[in-house]
Amino acid sequence: MRIRKKPWAENELSTNSYIIQEPESMKGRWAEYFDNDNPVFIEIGCGKGRFISLTAKANPDYNFIGIERDKSVSAVAVRHITEEIDNLCFICADAGNLENYFEQGEVKRIYLNFSDPWPRKKWAKRRLTYKTFLAAYKKVFGKSGEIHMKTDNRGLFEFSLNEFSNENWRLRNISLDLHNSDYEGNIMTEYEEKFSSEGLPIYRLEAYFND
Amino acid sequence: MRIRKKPWAENELSTNSYIIQEPESMKGRWAEYFDNDNPVFIEIGCGKGRFISLTAKANPDYNFIGIERDKSVSAVAVRHITEEIDNLCFICADAGNLENYFEQGEVKRIYLNFSDPWPRKKWAKRRLTYKTFLAAYKKVFGKSGEIHMKTDNRGLFEFSLNEFSNENWRLRNISLDLHNSDYEGNIMTEYEEKFSSEGLPIYRLEAYFND
Repeated sequence: MRIRKKPWAENELSTNSYIIQEPESMKGRWAEYFDNDNPVFIEIGCGKGRFISLTAKANPDYNFIGIERDKSVSAVAVRHITEEIDNLCFICADAGNLENYFEQGEVKRIYLNFSDPWPRKKWAKRRLTYKTFLAAYKKVFGKSGEIHMKTDNRGLFEFSLNEFSNENWRLRNISLDLHNSDYEGNIMTEYEEKFSSEGLPIYRLEAYFND
Repeated sequence: MRIRKKPWAENELSTNSYIIQEPESMKGRWAEYFDNDNPVFIEIGCGKGRFISLTAKANPDYNFIGIERDKSVSAVAVRHITEEIDNLCFICADAGNLENYFEQGEVKRIYLNFSDPWPRKKWAKRRLTYKTFLAAYKKVFGKSGEIHMKTDNRGLFEFSLNEFSNENWRLRNISLDLHNSDYEGNIMTEYEEKFSSEGLPIYRLEAYFND
């Protein structure tokens, strides 16, 4: 997600308590941080944080971490939060370094919502469901884990279906038109709200493995 | 596929040499019939036979059997064939009885092209990718086999993706817009030609297993 650069972003990020200042130092210590052993779910590319914040509020028995590399977007995400949500925090960093922030098995679910489709073929390696990313996710999942993915981009969804299959992940709850499906409790992202009002389909899948 | 009833259908079916008169008697003897050990590929619901005939001509090293339950449609399919295609024949029968026509391992690939989507939920069991059909296909596949499926129906495709996944089939070469994909050598069915000219996407997948 790109927005106009916020001059106050650096200050917000260094003072807002929802931002983890040194996420590397939390590796292996997330249970300590949240003060419980509940499963940790992360969203990669959480944007302005609507999805992860609402999901955290609706699911107090899980811990949620939003990861967003854009500083201005991250700053907007945390500034938006006007209430106390104990099971939520944010990391402003690149998701390519997940291993630096999480021990094996420390993450149980990853959300990928409306990730950049990187439509040109030569950009395929940058897509968050490219096989090298899937391998990186497995490292923080440990023995089992699941990915919940939503997108409006048919090309990215098709790519992801194939990539998950080729890499031996199992698929379930695949939807080619989420808003006209039986799926209940969908929490929309900012982008999804805007996009779906145009009537085009939203795609969704869950991919998982148990090694 | 439904067409006007052909009064000449019965006669065509009983005399055209492309029609197998007693398919039950061929069970375990297809190599004998084709006079070679080439893999046997079948199409369930082959309609007027454009796809299976063109595919057979383009692939002389495989044997092809079109299966169609509608007598008038089957009669049109075989009447259309004006040349000799040694690796092709047809069965006019219901695909629910595959086991009566094929031994375990006698079929290597099944094509499902534009099958009836049976859109209402209470009809799900009639869809050709419902789990009971998938189990029946496994019986004629034996230890391994693959299904190549095409449809224009989003609901059927979504259902099929989930059903294959739930039943532990593996997926590959999934396309959400076949005619704008990299897939080469697509042979269009009659229906596909007509439908795709309207600009809507064709979905395709391959599902396979190796027990």
